[in-house]
Order: sequence, then structure tokens, then C-alpha cells
Amino acid sequence: MAAPVALIQGASRGLGLEFCKHILKNKTPAAVIATCRDPDGAAELRGLVGRHPGRLTVLGLDVSREEDIRGAAERVREGFGRLDLIVNSSAMLHPSGKGETSLRDVTAQGIIATLTTNTVGPLVMAKYFAPLLQKGGGGFGAQLAEKARQHSGIIVNITAKVGSIGDNGLGGWYSYRMSKAALNMATRNLSIELGRSRPRVVCVSLHPGTVNTDLSRPYHRNVPQDKLFSAEHSVSCLMGIVDTLNMEKTGKAYNWDGTELPW
Amino acid sequence: MAAPVALIQGASRGLGLEFCKHILKNKTPAAVIATCRDPDGAAELRGLVGRHPGRLTVLGLDVSREEDIRGAAERVREGFGRLDLIVNSSAMLHPSGKGETSLRDVTAQGIIATLTTNTVGPLVMAKYFAPLLQKGGGGFGAQLAEKARQHSGIIVNITAKVGSIGDNGLGGWYSYRMSKAALNMATRNLSIELGRSRPRVVCVSLHPGTVNTDLSRPYHRNVPQDKLFSAEHSVSCLMGIVDTLNMEKTGKAYNWDGTELPW
Ligand SMILES: NC(=O)c1ccc[n+]([C@@H]2O[C@H](COP(=O)([O-])OP(=O)(O)OC[C@H]3O[C@@H](n4cnc5c(N)ncnc54)[C@H](OP(=O)(O)O)[C@@H]3O)[C@@H](O)[C@H]2O)c1
Ligand SMILES: NC(=O)c1ccc[n+]([C@@H]2O[C@H](COP(=O)([O-])OP(=O)(O)OC[C@H]3O[C@@H](n4cnc5c(N)ncnc54)[C@H](OP(=O)(O)O)[C@@H]3O)[C@@H](O)[C@H]2O)c1
Repeated sequence: MAAPVALIQGASRGLGLEFCKHILKNKTPAAVIATCRDPDGAAELRGLVGRHPGRLTVLGLDVSREEDIRGAAERVREGFGRLDLIVNSSAMLHPSGKGETSLRDVTAQGIIATLTTNTVGPLVMAKYFAPLLQKGGGGFGAQLAEKARQHSGIIVNITAKVGSIGDNGLGGWYSYRMSKAALNMATRNLSIELGRSRPRVVCVSLHPGTVNTDLSRPYHRNVPQDKLFSAEHSVSCLMGIVDTLNMEKTGKAYNWDGTELPW
Repeated sequence: MAAPVALIQGASRGLGLEFCKHILKNKTPAAVIATCRDPDGAAELRGLVGRHPGRLTVLGLDVSREEDIRGAAERVREGFGRLDLIVNSSAMLHPSGKGETSLRDVTAQGIIATLTTNTVGPLVMAKYFAPLLQKGGGGFGAQLAEKARQHSGIIVNITAKVGSIGDNGLGGWYSYRMSKAALNMATRNLSIELGRSRPRVVCVSLHPGTVNTDLSRPYHRNVPQDKLFSAEHSVSCLMGIVDTLNMEKTGKAYNWDGTELPW
């Protein structure tokens, strides 16, 4: 069987970069396609290419540009012809770098920019890459015994606990919360459409915990030390969940510890 | 006590127009401010002005333009100084007039346009009108006995059952579903911020049922006759719910029959 192929979208830094490292280290001989909007600026990612000859391909992709996504899908089709896993990791709290603390901070422009990257991007990724996932070999996850219910590929949308409407007790962070709630709806909708298709594609939202990355940096001092995960720990938990995914687990949102997150 | 003031956003047609009619007919002496993006083209709405002298004010407001919202709020502040109720009714299924039936129909531009009108608009409305709702006299809803928990105003965001992530069994309609899921998060977030403030503002999402309007027209032939409500019936149900609202009911989504809608 051909080596599995994983595509990590938003791989220049943080969790996306860590997903690349994890798969290169722990999923030999899987190939990794890492996309980011500025490959030249992503020094750590480029460093990985040399250390894993032939296994890591870096492509330029700004997830807010449909043309970039279409172009990257075309290159993956030509170069690989199929995919087994996509992780949509890129996101922002808000263009300002901080979530809105109150309505006063809300602007139409800020919400739209956040939704465009965090929500629209992952869905448009699914549009262009679903045909490649349907050609995948089911190289990630835990296949069900019954042939007719097996999956060819997996889509992971990285969500956030604060994107759970039911769990929202604190408020604030309007743009980010709304973007992740809408992303969860996209996950659910994708799981239905791609669960009906043959071959089938699994689609889930995963919450990584609170992780020591640039995104959460402005808030680190409020997080108890044992609650602030390293990217390495978080990704190792999330890939542990990916290892268990199949069509029975599709269409849901899970925490880093595998428990289900309410919508 | 001064007459209550209600603002209906998206009042040129459909449910928004019907909310104006209902309040003018059944909530005398309440004043109605009706906003729509093209007052000159809204013949039926303008007809109501003449039939209800002094009670109905029409303002131009395209909910996708923050400047329009800010300007309308300024005019309401000058003319009324307060508000008791806002209903955000404007929305679209998709710029094409039909929800996406599959991923193939999804475009970044289509999703962003739908989110801008259906989701961002109502939240930006809340930003500019919340201060006026906090000056309201609590003229709508059913006040709690305890003074400290009474509300000064109410925000109603018109949502849709298909915007419930948990209830989604069919898929499709990506843009519309995502826009309403994100709107429900906005409702929830607003209920928290404006529930902490003094005076307090109630904020809910309401699902009108499947209603005989232009929005649902492409799908009418699939709806059993007794399940397709007239706008009059739907608004009468929704205003029945509004009559019961108070701080104990804030932050939730309700069906036209008063039952709670899952997130
Ligand atoms: N960190 C946490 O505590 C936490 C908690 C819950 C959920 N999450 C989620 O985890 C995921 C990863 O976040 P992180 O913590 O790793 O954040 P991060 O370190 O700030 O990294 C964000 C990544 O997104 C990329 N990105 C932003 N806009 C992009 C665009 N338009 N096109 C392509 N890439 C873009 C960035 O690329 P550039 O280098 O080009 O800017 C960067 O690689 C996100 O979905 C986030 O919402 C994180
Ligand atoms: N009808 C149903 O079966 C149904 C079911 C569930 C939920 N809903 C919800 O009910 C609400 C009302 O829908 P409806 O059935 O009354 O739809 P409708 O008859 O199609 O009316 C839509 C209204 O939205 C306005 N609008 C659209 N874009 C706007 C913008 N950028 N700025 C200002 N106004 C704008 C339209 O104004 P113009 O005249 O200027 O175009 C029109 O007044 C919506 O939130 C909809 O999602 C409806």
C-alpha cells in the first residue's frame, strides 16, 4: 500500500508546525504537505525539509484566498493524486491579535477578517481537497471492519472550546467565538455530505486545549502553568484522537482528551 | 410612562414588514422604527406610515454597512433617545437566492456575503443600539418582580432551525447554516455582556417556522401546506414569545412554539 499523505494547512508556526513534526517523526513513511502563506518566512518549517529528505513538501497558501487553495489542490493532485488527512490549523483571535473584551471593540471589518480566515478558509479547503481525500487510502484513523463503512480520508478542523455556544459562560471574544461556532457547523455539514459519498470522508472538529503558542500569548499569564500545554503535548493528544477516528466518530467536536465538546 | 419604541431591522418585506404591522395593530401606543436598505422601493412599508400617523418612522439602513448602522443609531438617539425592542429580521439564503446543495456550490465570496448580512449585521446593530436599549423602559416582555433583575430592552435575532448544529441531520445550505450558527453565538455572547450590565438587556434568537415569504419561495413546493406558515401567523407566535421574555429566558434560541432550540 502507498505511504499515507497528510496535508497540514497553517504550518508556519504553532500547532500546524507541530503537526508536521509529529507526523514526520511518528508516522513514517507518511508524506507531509505543509502549507503556509509565506514559505520563505517559515524558517523552522523549511529546516524540516532538509532533515526529512523526500517526505515534506511546502506549498504557499493563504487560506483567505480561494485562488491559492484551488492552485494548491491542483499541485497536490499532480504530485500525489490523493490525500489521507487534512488538518486545518490556521486561525487568528482577531486582526488586532486580541479578542474583543466588549461590544465596544467589535467592528464589522474585524469580524469579517476573522471569519474569512478561521471559517471560510477551512470550508473552501474542503471544497477543493475533498476529491483528493476521496481518492485516499484511509491511511489515518482506525478503520471499521465493515468495508462499506470504511473511510478514505479525514478532515480535522481545529476548533476551540470557546467556540462552543452551549459551554459559553464568560462572553467576549465575539469574532473568534463566532468563527469557531460557524466552523463547527461547517464540520457537521461536511460530515453529512462526505459521509453520504463513496468513498467516505470523516470530518471532525478538535479542541487542542490552551497551548503555548503566539495565538494565546497575550493571555498566558492568566493560565495556571499545568493548564498551558506545549504544542508538542497538545498535538500528541490530538493525533491520539485522530488514530481512533472512523465513520462512527464523524461529525462531532472533541476535546484534546477525547471527550465530546457540546455545540 | 412613555410609549414603548420598537425597531425592526429588515422591514421592507416578509417577516420584518409583518413585525411592523403586528406592533402597530396590537401594541398601541408603541412607536415603530422600520429600517430597510431602500425605503423608496418599500411601497407597502411606506403605505403603513400614512395609515398610522405619527407612529411609524422609516430609516434607510443596509445592515452590511457599519456606517449606515451608526448613522441610524444616531438618528434614533436624537429622535427617541431610547429603545425597548430591536428585531433583526433581514437575511438571505445565499446571494444566488438558493442555499448550496453541495460543496461544489460553495464559494468564499458567497459565504462571506451571507455572513456579512446575516451575522455581522445583527451584531454590529447591537453594538450601536445597545446604549439606547439600556435607556429603554422595558416596554416589551414580562418583567420579573425583583427590580434588580428587570430589563430595559430586548434584542431578538431571527435565526433558523437549520442554524442549529445539533439538529442538523440533512446538510447542505452551508452559508446560511453557518451564518445562523454564528448568529446564535452572537446572541449568547450578547446575552452575557448585556446581562451583566445595568440596566440589563434580554437577548434571544427566535426561529419563525417555515414561512411563506420570498426567502423560502424556491422551496415551497417541498413543504406540506399546513407546515408553511403565513408571515402573520409566524409573527403572532413570535410576538407571543416576546411577551414572555425576561432575564430568566435570555441567551437562548426558541422555536415559534416557545420550545427551546438546541445549539
Ligand atoms: N493556542 C491555543 O491556546 C489554542 C486554543 C484553542 C484553539 N486553538 C486553535 O489552534 C489552531 C492553531 O493555533 P496556534 O495556537 O498554533 O496559533 P499561532 O501559533 O498563532 O499560529 C497561527 C497560524 O495560522 C497561520 N495563518 C493565519 N492566517 C493565515 C492565512 N490567512 N493563511 C494561512 N495561514 C494563516 C499563521 O501563519 P503566519 O505565520 O503566516 O502568520 C500561523 O501558522 C487555531 O485554529 C486556533 O484557533 C489554539
Ligand atoms: N421564511 C422562512 O421560511 C424562514 C425560516 C427560518 C428563518 N427565517 C428568517 O426570517 C428572517 C426574515 O426572513 P423572510 O422570510 O422575511 O425573508 P424575505 O422575505 O426574503 O425578506 C428578507 C428581508 O431582508 C432584507 N435584507 C436583505 N439584505 C439586507 C441588507 N443588506 N440590509 C438590509 N436589509 C436586507 C430584505 O430587504 P430588501 O427588500 O431590500 O431586499 C428583506 O426585507 C430572516 O432572518 C430569515 O433567515 C425565515
